[in-house]
Amino acid sequence: MPVHHDITDLTLAARGRDRIAWAERAMPVLAAIRERFTRTRPLAGARVAACLHVTAETAALMRTLAAGGADVRLCASNPLSTQDDVAAALVDDGIAVFARAGEDRTTYFQHLGAALAHRPQLVMDDGADLATLLHTARTDLAASVIGGTEETTTGVTRLRAMAREGVLRWPVIAVNDAATKHMFDNRHGTGQSTIDGLLRATNRLLAGATFVVCGYGWCGRGLATRAAGMGARVIVTEVDPLRALEAVMDGYQVMPIAAAAALGDFFCTVAGNAGVIRREHFLAMKDGAVVANAGHFDVELDLAALRALAPAARRIRPHLDEHTLPDGRRIYLVAEGRLANLAAAEGHPADVMDMSFADQALSAEHVITSHRDLAVAVHSVPRTIDREVVRLKLRALGVVIDELTDDQRTYLTGWHAGT
Amino acid sequence: MPVHHDITDLTLAARGRDRIAWAERAMPVLAAIRERFTRTRPLAGARVAACLHVTAETAALMRTLAAGGADVRLCASNPLSTQDDVAAALVDDGIAVFARAGEDRTTYFQHLGAALAHRPQLVMDDGADLATLLHTARTDLAASVIGGTEETTTGVTRLRAMAREGVLRWPVIAVNDAATKHMFDNRHGTGQSTIDGLLRATNRLLAGATFVVCGYGWCGRGLATRAAGMGARVIVTEVDPLRALEAVMDGYQVMPIAAAAALGDFFCTVAGNAGVIRREHFLAMKDGAVVANAGHFDVELDLAALRALAPAARRIRPHLDEHTLPDGRRIYLVAEGRLANLAAAEGHPADVMDMSFADQALSAEHVITSHRDLAVAVHSVPRTIDREVVRLKLRALGVVIDELTDDQRTYLTGWHAGT
Amino acid sequence: MPVHHDITDLTLAARGRDRIAWAERAMPVLAAIRERFTRTRPLAGARVAACLHVTAETAALMRTLAAGGADVRLCASNPLSTQDDVAAALVDDGIAVFARAGEDRTTYFQHLGAALAHRPQLVMDDGADLATLLHTARTDLAASVIGGTEETTTGVTRLRAMAREGVLRWPVIAVNDAATKHMFDNRHGTGQSTIDGLLRATNRLLAGATFVVCGYGWCGRGLATRAAGMGARVIVTEVDPLRALEAVMDGYQVMPIAAAAALGDFFCTVAGNAGVIRREHFLAMKDGAVVANAGHFDVELDLAALRALAPAARRIRPHLDEHTLPDGRRIYLVAEGRLANLAAAEGHPADVMDMSFADQALSAEHVITSHRDLAVAVHSVPRTIDREVVRLKLRALGVVIDELTDDQRTYLTGWHAGT
Amino acid sequence: MPVHHDITDLTLAARGRDRIAWAERAMPVLAAIRERFTRTRPLAGARVAACLHVTAETAALMRTLAAGGADVRLCASNPLSTQDDVAAALVDDGIAVFARAGEDRTTYFQHLGAALAHRPQLVMDDGADLATLLHTARTDLAASVIGGTEETTTGVTRLRAMAREGVLRWPVIAVNDAATKHMFDNRHGTGQSTIDGLLRATNRLLAGATFVVCGYGWCGRGLATRAAGMGARVIVTEVDPLRALEAVMDGYQVMPIAAAAALGDFFCTVAGNAGVIRREHFLAMKDGAVVANAGHFDVELDLAALRALAPAARRIRPHLDEHTLPDGRRIYLVAEGRLANLAAAEGHPADVMDMSFADQALSAEHVITSHRDLAVAVHSVPRTIDREVVRLKLRALGVVIDELTDDQRTYLTGWHAGT
Repeated sequence: MPVHHDITDLTLAARGRDRIAWAERAMPVLAAIRERFTRTRPLAGARVAACLHVTAETAALMRTLAAGGADVRLCASNPLSTQDDVAAALVDDGIAVFARAGEDRTTYFQHLGAALAHRPQLVMDDGADLATLLHTARTDLAASVIGGTEETTTGVTRLRAMAREGVLRWPVIAVNDAATKHMFDNRHGTGQSTIDGLLRATNRLLAGATFVVCGYGWCGRGLATRAAGMGARVIVTEVDPLRALEAVMDGYQVMPIAAAAALGDFFCTVAGNAGVIRREHFLAMKDGAVVANAGHFDVELDLAALRALAPAARRIRPHLDEHTLPDGRRIYLVAEGRLANLAAAEGHPADVMDMSFADQALSAEHVITSHRDLAVAVHSVPRTIDREVVRLKLRALGVVIDELTDDQRTYLTGWHAGT
Repeated sequence: MPVHHDITDLTLAARGRDRIAWAERAMPVLAAIRERFTRTRPLAGARVAACLHVTAETAALMRTLAAGGADVRLCASNPLSTQDDVAAALVDDGIAVFARAGEDRTTYFQHLGAALAHRPQLVMDDGADLATLLHTARTDLAASVIGGTEETTTGVTRLRAMAREGVLRWPVIAVNDAATKHMFDNRHGTGQSTIDGLLRATNRLLAGATFVVCGYGWCGRGLATRAAGMGARVIVTEVDPLRALEAVMDGYQVMPIAAAAALGDFFCTVAGNAGVIRREHFLAMKDGAVVANAGHFDVELDLAALRALAPAARRIRPHLDEHTLPDGRRIYLVAEGRLANLAAAEGHPADVMDMSFADQALSAEHVITSHRDLAVAVHSVPRTIDREVVRLKLRALGVVIDELTDDQRTYLTGWHAGT
Repeated sequence: MPVHHDITDLTLAARGRDRIAWAERAMPVLAAIRERFTRTRPLAGARVAACLHVTAETAALMRTLAAGGADVRLCASNPLSTQDDVAAALVDDGIAVFARAGEDRTTYFQHLGAALAHRPQLVMDDGADLATLLHTARTDLAASVIGGTEETTTGVTRLRAMAREGVLRWPVIAVNDAATKHMFDNRHGTGQSTIDGLLRATNRLLAGATFVVCGYGWCGRGLATRAAGMGARVIVTEVDPLRALEAVMDGYQVMPIAAAAALGDFFCTVAGNAGVIRREHFLAMKDGAVVANAGHFDVELDLAALRALAPAARRIRPHLDEHTLPDGRRIYLVAEGRLANLAAAEGHPADVMDMSFADQALSAEHVITSHRDLAVAVHSVPRTIDREVVRLKLRALGVVIDELTDDQRTYLTGWHAGT
Repeated sequence: MPVHHDITDLTLAARGRDRIAWAERAMPVLAAIRERFTRTRPLAGARVAACLHVTAETAALMRTLAAGGADVRLCASNPLSTQDDVAAALVDDGIAVFARAGEDRTTYFQHLGAALAHRPQLVMDDGADLATLLHTARTDLAASVIGGTEETTTGVTRLRAMAREGVLRWPVIAVNDAATKHMFDNRHGTGQSTIDGLLRATNRLLAGATFVVCGYGWCGRGLATRAAGMGARVIVTEVDPLRALEAVMDGYQVMPIAAAAALGDFFCTVAGNAGVIRREHFLAMKDGAVVANAGHFDVELDLAALRALAPAARRIRPHLDEHTLPDGRRIYLVAEGRLANLAAAEGHPADVMDMSFADQALSAEHVITSHRDLAVAVHSVPRTIDREVVRLKLRALGVVIDELTDDQRTYLTGWHAGT
């Protein structure tokens, strides 16, 4: 009898297994951790509720946690990002999954509830939806929780707000803040996969186009680099002066979204904020503008305003809806404003998720083994984890680097040597 | 009663129509020509046989020729590149199409024959398959032909060989050689769409990967630029010393394929030649190497050698086959070695095909109206066509440029002014 | 009667004044601070000893401190980087300068002593030479010191070592660690000016050359970006795994210096460490290799080893010495291994020094006004200073950015809104 | 007794010799040709008048021609580009030179006359000043001429105009049009050396600046690539629609100079035309704009207009003049509007001049040996020369490339193989 689950089609398992195998080939760091977990079972008996994008890479993480002895339940962190075949393969492998691609809001929250129903000790979040639920409507399921991990900038921001208000109930590891995570996943993962999603959704030429990137954090930097690398002229919008100045010196034009709105052929929000592109900006856009979001939640574009302006949207290609403004101009919305890289493409390549999910696996182990020593707060990933992950990754890539000589070590710790 | 056709499924017409409409939105130059053709009917009554990739962009060209009065028959120039929904929409619109995605070799040539069966006056080729057939097995259908056009570098090379041997039977316009074609289509079209095809087929990270580009013509230049733009380290292989030196100065490593074979994570041929990657090179590759072709014919990779080395290929993802060498190393072949950008993605974006197919439409008009003045040879596209296409494109993009002042015109045509 | 000084030639003052005026045109942030200092005199009566590169940009800082009421003495932080005309202009303006371009080691330390002789309250360092002297040979002059500032990564490393050992005697502001400093000065300043120094010293083509960057901190990142931007193929060496991996994903080859030594046409150290390129590496280099340093001290190249291998160096161009190895191969050393960007060119452009020296001026004010509240330790630059500097810089550049709406502010501080 | 000459200072010969030796180390192709010329003396007795930039690289060419037996006279092709030490070394070596850095217009033309006074058979031009003189004021010296060579786009344009008018009197080889010349010299040479000249003249930060490139031929493409590579935002102006569209797709903004004038921080003309930046454009510029020219003649900027607007220019740095408009805004002119890369820096790196001057040497040999077979016209460089130069360059760089297999050769010359 299969484990508890609610997925689209169990018969897709074989295809999902191929997909997971392909991802795992590019995840040698996680494989090394899984091998150790299999031997040492550091998570033996731990109940884990994970709310993540249900992709092949996440499957590799789930299999790693299970190999470490954890009793895992997985639900989706986004209604559009589930790969149904991967979900099937996981269930077939004995991991409880509650996720269907394209599920509605009600189902989405039912699935969160199902993932929490086995009263987890560890909560693994991507956007902090599980943690929020456990602090609001479902405090009844929170008693068993000893700690959590959080994957995204957005989720960390939410959890820090909870800590600031004094309501946070357990220690959380901010996996997002590991260098081996955000310097690679947010930058190179989001950069490439968002371009991928835009190409699949539109097949439009980027060379010579004007590409507006809203937000210049790690995701924005990555996306701007790739858009320019594909030949686009990049405009950056920001609210943070330091990041704005960084973008200027990186060679991009920086201006308010109100000015950029009239210039862009493509727009993509990666701001971690709500209402970044609003009614007045949609109204200023050129006929044919393509608008997408690669930030965590679908709040970065003011979709209500767009729908009010253009009520009769029409799907003209997979993941692309035509919104016609009253004066006839058309705006093309990618993937209903949800994460374009996950909804219209396949999300971050396994090569970067390898490190992010190695951070997750090791952070989960850290919470399980050290929760008694962790204050109720949002914690950084321990340096030892970052170091272990980068060490394994370089080894897997076959990259050899210099080691400090004794003389150099002495030089660096001394201060007498000068001019 | 519908026109003659042999396609996969006529009920896909509605979806195809949306797809064509989306492409046509990015093809303002062709639209301007179609508008004129509708008024002036310069191709009235001309029978045209076109052998092109059956994509939404090609549909826009077919509709333009039909608007000009031509009686068009279309077959596929590649067994894997047909978009079945587009074929259906064209048939529904009254244009005869003979193409099914994934058709076998026999069907492929039957379809060529069907396209030629109405005894064309104009032959429009993409790779010179129609022209070759008319000069070999089907000389019986060649009598009516007054001229042809050719889209690709590969096809032009073949036709020039025919001219050199003295067997060519009619004038051909080398559309590929128009500046408005190869400087944009071959470079930016192939560059972007090949990256697109590789991402869809593999979802692997390009940043930090070693990407081997075989061939540094316009397609190779474009692909190298985009691969580097996505963060890859690019190695170029070439047989032409000048192009090799250009690649060196463009910042790429240049070496023989025998040396590059052991270094690459990704390989893509765009050489316009046969056997560019051969048995000994496959044998030298790293476990996990991804191999693709974006050159016109599937001869650039020695597929026979690969299959001999690894007979039991296994499809592990759409458009990706795993070939396991005797020692266990695995090589991943994209789209069976056929044009990765067309088979695994959607081909060049409409934005560049706009110019290429504007060149085609105007070259077709030129052949029809001026064939009596054209020697039996391979001809350049008339300068006036290049000029008209670029003028329309800039206007559509809203780009305004400087005009020569009278003083400047005088300066440029004089020679007395110096130091 | 002029102030105390020891400079090369006071008659160069007029030329120096032009040079300073040109720099100040690109330093609007410092100008705004100077304007305020002139009004409010926050440094009134404070004795400052500054050990900085004696360039036009430094002159602008000195004039700002003096405008604030400080009694300033300036000596050079590097024997080769002094601009004699600038020194003359400063003296002519009433600021005490002790610096001569190309001064020997003895004079260098005499000048440090002269700068300290007026018993400073504030010590402003670029490499921590003044601070070191005051903690070792000249503790007699240390009694009056209430605090210091430090400009460079190297100096901050030294001062942190002093703090770790418990010997540091006053609070120091690590100006280098301000975001408005290292993200721009170290990256874009070092990047451009090092390229500039190499071009002036060699006039060699970078396009197609192999350029080895040793160290991938902020300076290394900047230099790698610019070398690649000039068409070179970049190889990075590192001792830090995380930085090494970052370089890999940024598209560079990463390898140990022992392997890179045989491949490079250009080498430049920016590692902040000693002996980065050593005897065995010089011996492996190609005939004609160009070797430079842009790290703070001239210890990054093992110059003693190079001189032992090739005793008879010959100056073949300004700032370029030919070292012939026993087997006839020649290695070309730029600027005797001292900061190539300052010795062979003019150092960082005023545009970035504007921010770095605004940080210095505001940090000096901070020490003077708040030293009683500062523990004896190495301190970060207060956030308010970073924010003020970036605000003024954006304003001067005419860059306008978005401001958070009330809704956005609410969203960012809340945590209830999720999927 | 030294040869005829008029130079600045013969005592600079030693320094000039070092400079030439340094250049020759980067010119292996020319060295190989010189070695052959020394043996075979193909130019024995030929009188050559050369009007070129008197730089170290030109010296290497002169020494090659002399080694081949030619009797050479050299004058400058630009009043500001002469390296006086190089001129001295050449004279010391027995080559007649007539050039002084900064010579006035009268002297400039006297020097041209001196170079022609020995009644040359071959005329080697860089801008066609010798050829023009021989077709106008000094037809008396033209009788002996059997042919010429021309180095630049500008010169070829002039000579083509002469041919079109039917006045050209001898065959000329358009060295500029050799692929091994313009694809490297014009692009990478001008690109790097113009950046070099701008940095030396201004020491301003390019990162984040707006850089306007006027003209998008090979020089403009190279300069735009390098300006972007240094972090600038590039705007291109053009009169040719095709080049304009190429610039758009390369990711640059394209607009008329009238619009760009108000946006640029740096302007550089490389248009090969007169009056590219005119009165109304100077009037629209921002305070502090830097204006330069890297096109052949100093006519690209309307200097008369600038001087009329701002009569009292002031030199504020070497090669940089401040022009103050009536309203107080200041425009900074680099190198008096003459070739910024040659006047403010040292011109193209020897690495690229190696090929250009190899083309020159081989073209000179071609004219001398084959002039009887050459029609009076502007001729392309024979393909064999291009091929020989690139072969030698790749060999010198140690770059090995693939060779066509027999199968490939057959494939490329056949036409039967298709789908």
